[in-house]
Amino acid sequence: MFAPAYLDHNATTPVAPRVLEAMLPWFDQRHGNASSRHEYGRAARAAIDEARARVAAAVGAHATEVVFTGGGSEANNLFVKGAAAKLGPGLVAVSATEHPSVREAARSLQSQSWRYAEIGVDPDGRVIPARYAGLLAERPAMVSVMLANNETGVIQDIGVLAEQARPTRAWFHADAVQALGKIDVDFRALNARGVHALTVSAHKLGGPKGAGALIVDKRVDLAPLIHGGGQERGLRSGTENVPAIVGFGVACELAVAEKSAVAARQRMLRGELEKGLAEQGATIFGLGAARLPNTVYFALPGIDGETLVGKLDRAGFAVASGAACSSAKVEPSPVLMAMGVVPELARGAVRVSLGRETTERQTRGFLQALVATVFQLKRLAALAS
Amino acid sequence: MFAPAYLDHNATTPVAPRVLEAMLPWFDQRHGNASSRHEYGRAARAAIDEARARVAAAVGAHATEVVFTGGGSEANNLFVKGAAAKLGPGLVAVSATEHPSVREAARSLQSQSWRYAEIGVDPDGRVIPARYAGLLAERPAMVSVMLANNETGVIQDIGVLAEQARPTRAWFHADAVQALGKIDVDFRALNARGVHALTVSAHKLGGPKGAGALIVDKRVDLAPLIHGGGQERGLRSGTENVPAIVGFGVACELAVAEKSAVAARQRMLRGELEKGLAEQGATIFGLGAARLPNTVYFALPGIDGETLVGKLDRAGFAVASGAACSSAKVEPSPVLMAMGVVPELARGAVRVSLGRETTERQTRGFLQALVATVFQLKRLAALAS
Repeated sequence: MFAPAYLDHNATTPVAPRVLEAMLPWFDQRHGNASSRHEYGRAARAAIDEARARVAAAVGAHATEVVFTGGGSEANNLFVKGAAAKLGPGLVAVSATEHPSVREAARSLQSQSWRYAEIGVDPDGRVIPARYAGLLAERPAMVSVMLANNETGVIQDIGVLAEQARPTRAWFHADAVQALGKIDVDFRALNARGVHALTVSAHKLGGPKGAGALIVDKRVDLAPLIHGGGQERGLRSGTENVPAIVGFGVACELAVAEKSAVAARQRMLRGELEKGLAEQGATIFGLGAARLPNTVYFALPGIDGETLVGKLDRAGFAVASGAACSSAKVEPSPVLMAMGVVPELARGAVRVSLGRETTERQTRGFLQALVATVFQLKRLAALAS
Repeated sequence: MFAPAYLDHNATTPVAPRVLEAMLPWFDQRHGNASSRHEYGRAARAAIDEARARVAAAVGAHATEVVFTGGGSEANNLFVKGAAAKLGPGLVAVSATEHPSVREAARSLQSQSWRYAEIGVDPDGRVIPARYAGLLAERPAMVSVMLANNETGVIQDIGVLAEQARPTRAWFHADAVQALGKIDVDFRALNARGVHALTVSAHKLGGPKGAGALIVDKRVDLAPLIHGGGQERGLRSGTENVPAIVGFGVACELAVAEKSAVAARQRMLRGELEKGLAEQGATIFGLGAARLPNTVYFALPGIDGETLVGKLDRAGFAVASGAACSSAKVEPSPVLMAMGVVPELARGAVRVSLGRETTERQTRGFLQALVATVFQLKRLAALAS
């Protein structure tokens, strides 16, 4: 089987071998519904409890603060819409670089008489303090700023932003889907500074698709998105996805245990990549900000990102152009637009995101393929002009 | 490992070996995000397309009518809340024996100025024509009646009910979670008679937890429950759970192919069970109605259901008392209350639901264990009185 080098870990990750091994028994031999009272059901319930403790430990939360969902998008929607239903109409403010599952969920509140506002970011993708202060002066009821951005990897100082929002008494949420497993995430410390909820997801850190969680301060009153059997303290009904939840727990444990070593390796590999990219005249986005160690988001002047990604794919390297979740669209990335990048350069955007299993051979091979492809594209452009 | 006989297939089923085999490559080697444009992403997209065609074939729908969700509860909520958001306030009418994910979703609409009404059922659990006609006269905007009940297995004549609702122009939905794989489900034929949408779920028919679908007439305009990246025609955002969706497709294919043979076997096994239960003086619920071939729901006078289920569990037989999804509660089943069963008898309710892999040895063993347990419980009761 042809196996291209996978350098798109911010889109999704392979399930780690130990995670899959832990999941397997829960598909067949131990297949119970966790709501059942018999042996099969009790075993499933115990497995969920154990996974909940593992996820809680990884994010520095108490197990009772973990609400399992079917993924990160659902958890973001649960917070935004669930809080809105309880708070009643007001102002919802989200950063201009949020994931669509926060942005579109917040925008959807406009049909229920909410006002929607975006908090402007600087050229490195960080919230602009004056813009933020201006919105806080309008006393928002809800604020959402992501911990680390999926495209640029740029990290926001959520603790400081939450502290500043405190006098407004707004509920403060942060999408930590890309952060968990790559940098420290400590809900207890963030909660003490005013963060009410965090979103996390299994498939971004070596866990399976189909499991995410909202980590939420129990003083926050949320309406459920999915009504029914009353699972997850009534906040998320539906038969629990036991294998996926078990996998999420083990993935959290592994990712946190290996985080420092993996991050150090990724910083080294990314340093080499960025050196090579600089030699090609690339612009690296968010370079002036703190970023996730595994992400490099760049553009080469005059080179179309989609074209480049297609050619690299054929050369055996899987990377992303724009955000994975919106890669069906051809408009330049809204994240880069918010950062003030000119559309011509934004259209060239390519994201390389490293994983735990990424090798130096892969990143060097990628650079070589990139140089060859760019040379070829430039020659074609010269012939055409 | 101690493996009790599993006779609780309406709660959930083990993943069939061929289903799990089909799922496995999608966890690690072929782990792409279906929104990605590279090789890994395209492979995931193709796998989802193939699964969509398989699910569509199993329910007699066109592939474009299949909206994948994280499960049956989510699909029920998507229809009820998604239609409500587009229809505006009105009357929602659901049968008195609906699954909580329909009933509670419909009830939740009351906070948005909707009126909620339940359609009464007869002692066998079927919608009472006069009650239904009475509610139709109030011109409901939305009607939901389940195809087959999870507790009793009672089958409603959805086609007739949908035809009767037509003059009201109500959107008509049916929860087919328990029906698929056990009896014929033909969306094309039902749609022609006025059924606008069906809910189905993978883990009830040998597929994995974490995948369900709403089969929906494209003329029905729904608001999404989960906003974000715009997956599933914008109706359900979030990274697609590729392994679960692949498993859902294969499970549908297998279940439909084996349905007739399995149903015939189950009818035979159930016949023996019901004969034995009658000898013990059991009341069998829904006996006068058409029922799923795998389900027998009964009570023995003077015997508490919870106690019986606990003792049978220790004897090596996993069965349910009341509905699986609400088995954390101790009140008598709302389904039986709706059917007019007296609370004392309803508290004795035990559900046995057979699966594809259920053997005659298991059902005979179950009957023997039941007889022994009942003898023991009656002797204890006699000693205590």
